[in-house]
Amino acid sequence: MVGLAEKHRVVIVGGGFGGLYAAKELGRAPVEVTLIDKRNFHLFQPLLYQVATGTLSPADISSPLRGILSSNKNTKVLMDEVTDIDPLQKKVKLQSSEVDYDTLIVATGVSHHYFGNEHWKPTAPGLKTVEDALEMRRRIFVAFEAAEKEPDPEKRQSWLTFVIVGGGPTGVELAGAIAELSFNTLKQDFRNIDTREARILLLEGLDRILPPYPPDLSEKAAQSLSELGVTIRTKTLVTNIANHVVTAKQGDQVEEIPAQTILWAAGVKASAMGKVLEQQVGATLDRVGRVVVEPDLSIAHQPDIFVIGDLAVYTHQDGKPLPGVAPVAMQEGQYVARLVCERIKGQSLPPFRYTDTGSMAVIGQNKAVANLGQVKFSGATAWFIWIFAHIYYLIEFDNKLIVMLQWGWNYFTRNRGARLITGEGSLVQVDVDENGNYAVPGSQSPVEV
Amino acid sequence: MVGLAEKHRVVIVGGGFGGLYAAKELGRAPVEVTLIDKRNFHLFQPLLYQVATGTLSPADISSPLRGILSSNKNTKVLMDEVTDIDPLQKKVKLQSSEVDYDTLIVATGVSHHYFGNEHWKPTAPGLKTVEDALEMRRRIFVAFEAAEKEPDPEKRQSWLTFVIVGGGPTGVELAGAIAELSFNTLKQDFRNIDTREARILLLEGLDRILPPYPPDLSEKAAQSLSELGVTIRTKTLVTNIANHVVTAKQGDQVEEIPAQTILWAAGVKASAMGKVLEQQVGATLDRVGRVVVEPDLSIAHQPDIFVIGDLAVYTHQDGKPLPGVAPVAMQEGQYVARLVCERIKGQSLPPFRYTDTGSMAVIGQNKAVANLGQVKFSGATAWFIWIFAHIYYLIEFDNKLIVMLQWGWNYFTRNRGARLITGEGSLVQVDVDENGNYAVPGSQSPVEV
Repeated sequence: MVGLAEKHRVVIVGGGFGGLYAAKELGRAPVEVTLIDKRNFHLFQPLLYQVATGTLSPADISSPLRGILSSNKNTKVLMDEVTDIDPLQKKVKLQSSEVDYDTLIVATGVSHHYFGNEHWKPTAPGLKTVEDALEMRRRIFVAFEAAEKEPDPEKRQSWLTFVIVGGGPTGVELAGAIAELSFNTLKQDFRNIDTREARILLLEGLDRILPPYPPDLSEKAAQSLSELGVTIRTKTLVTNIANHVVTAKQGDQVEEIPAQTILWAAGVKASAMGKVLEQQVGATLDRVGRVVVEPDLSIAHQPDIFVIGDLAVYTHQDGKPLPGVAPVAMQEGQYVARLVCERIKGQSLPPFRYTDTGSMAVIGQNKAVANLGQVKFSGATAWFIWIFAHIYYLIEFDNKLIVMLQWGWNYFTRNRGARLITGEGSLVQVDVDENGNYAVPGSQSPVEV
Repeated sequence: MVGLAEKHRVVIVGGGFGGLYAAKELGRAPVEVTLIDKRNFHLFQPLLYQVATGTLSPADISSPLRGILSSNKNTKVLMDEVTDIDPLQKKVKLQSSEVDYDTLIVATGVSHHYFGNEHWKPTAPGLKTVEDALEMRRRIFVAFEAAEKEPDPEKRQSWLTFVIVGGGPTGVELAGAIAELSFNTLKQDFRNIDTREARILLLEGLDRILPPYPPDLSEKAAQSLSELGVTIRTKTLVTNIANHVVTAKQGDQVEEIPAQTILWAAGVKASAMGKVLEQQVGATLDRVGRVVVEPDLSIAHQPDIFVIGDLAVYTHQDGKPLPGVAPVAMQEGQYVARLVCERIKGQSLPPFRYTDTGSMAVIGQNKAVANLGQVKFSGATAWFIWIFAHIYYLIEFDNKLIVMLQWGWNYFTRNRGARLITGEGSLVQVDVDENGNYAVPGSQSPVEV
């Protein structure tokens, strides 16, 4: 290990797509890499909705960071949380220690945004972590169990109403999966209720779902969802969520929707590192706290600090910020890693450019939309492209083969084997709260996996 | 649905092996079946240690009860908890309602027993539920992460010490799996520690591990475990567990073992239904609260109430109680179901007889012991028999094929993909408690999945 200390030290904060791809790219470079993450695993977030709806298990879409990087002998993984940085001393401060850097790459991503209504969170959880997904799974399956036991028809309908707020890819995928659960998977399983009476509402503030996609694909997606039994409300704003009633406003019309299960897929805000970078190095933040970056993904006047992935706002390609999707983060991670290597040799790279590999959303069995730039697909073709693209990118995962077989199995049996109700509040018991409303126990308690 | 109310009503409490096999056997019978369970899934408990050690996911070894029984049109599944029974009115009382029965089958199993030291539980968790398994998994992998960050060699050794209390099949399987993790799976993953310095101790009170097995198989198992790197202490009693130190007594020798990870596999006690049956129908209980049953598995003087599975003590075969294993529960469930059908026809059955299909314990890759009565196996043969027997009995599971492939994959790669640290305490942070000892955060908080 002689001479290690003299090597250029790269510290990467965050083991998502951006951080992981930067670390992988640096694996054979003459640098010393430290990857810091709060969790011990990388999560394949685009498939999180499949955990939330009982198709896959958390481990199917997660892979231990140490395992992925174990053959990179220049790389150290630290399971810890960054509390601050010191740009003068070039130190990253952790909960229990500090780490020196020559180059710092920040890739800590984003979390949910309730647009000033953080108190909606316990009733309408979002989907960013494994714990979030298991909490959604618990609520969805508890809702059917509670409906089965509920004698009052009005309350029963409230248990069988699922409101998804936000018509982006996550909202569309959740709505489609819950519709398939209700109308196919579970239809034989209950004796007192008909799960086909479930009402699945997808609310979107803009004039169409999947707003970043071309209008005709949005139209195709809306049609597929309707066929599956999802009710779509566009130009609809959620003005209140209280006592398991969603208040939705479409133009002048206000509707109150009693729903026990409300899922949030509407907005993102920057992780805490954005604020740290603003305070310590004067980084410019956007409206939701993301960091505005230079053409080489560094922070202005801080050539040794880079921000990549969902936390970065990159507008140097066509004026519009790049979307917060996995391929952008991966390409940014690889770019910064290569730039670091060039700089060590005294050279540089031209500005970052994102190569759009297309975007896709799955709606249900055999139903998806895919926008590959020149070509657009919908229906079964898009669905198969989606499956293969996701399996291709699960490349880090031991479980790629297993996940593929699991999907194959689910495809032919239309089954969902992971529909477990687990955790503290897993025994269905309908309590009446102080307002005379009934509530699922544990639903507001801290969630664990 | 005309005439349903006139049918003989069978209520089964508990969806483990006993309850599930009774329900399945009754699926085509002219009776009305209600299966009540606190959870919405059946758990294949013999593989729970594979979840605890990061090989399988909970959903791989669980299957929704409604799914398994959905084609049995005479069967209703209720997710609820039994609080009491009324033998005069023939009613089972639930949290939110009551159910009438003509025949009652109780199959609620057992939980951990700390022999009067219930306060050891937070430090030394047992392994009965999915939540237990995920808590063990969290502690095992947190231990390695904490050791990696610990500068003090003594404290580091405490993080790398794993004490398993109890040398029965669960203890043996846990010890073997943790040894494989430390000495194989993880050996490339850390930079500051050598996971091969881990110390895995298996403590057993009797004079050999796997006491219910023939002595030569116990000997073979002990040899295999030693080869894997497990230290076995027989005739060793745990006299105290406090501040992450295990006090073990072997004859006159007392040893204090500092260990952050202590796993309990030592004893069982009856579930609460044992007490209910004692109070309501005068059932005789054994030392740990299990219900002593008649030759036909009913309770004395209560021909319509049966107890099966781990909760039952059946001594009518050779004087010794039948072991608390899955095959006994399955056969008891099937027997009672058939007896109910015979009784409806005005007939009966000879007393229950258990056909011993053998017992097995897996120790590690290619290492197991199997006692099939006439034939005994050890080593790779026993391991393959174990694999196939378990896959055969996973028959209820959608995921049989997936689990088999997962095992195949793990077998060839020696990998464990499910080694996620999840839940509230998932960020490693070493805290010092009021006694000056360090503790894993969250380790004493309620665990969820």
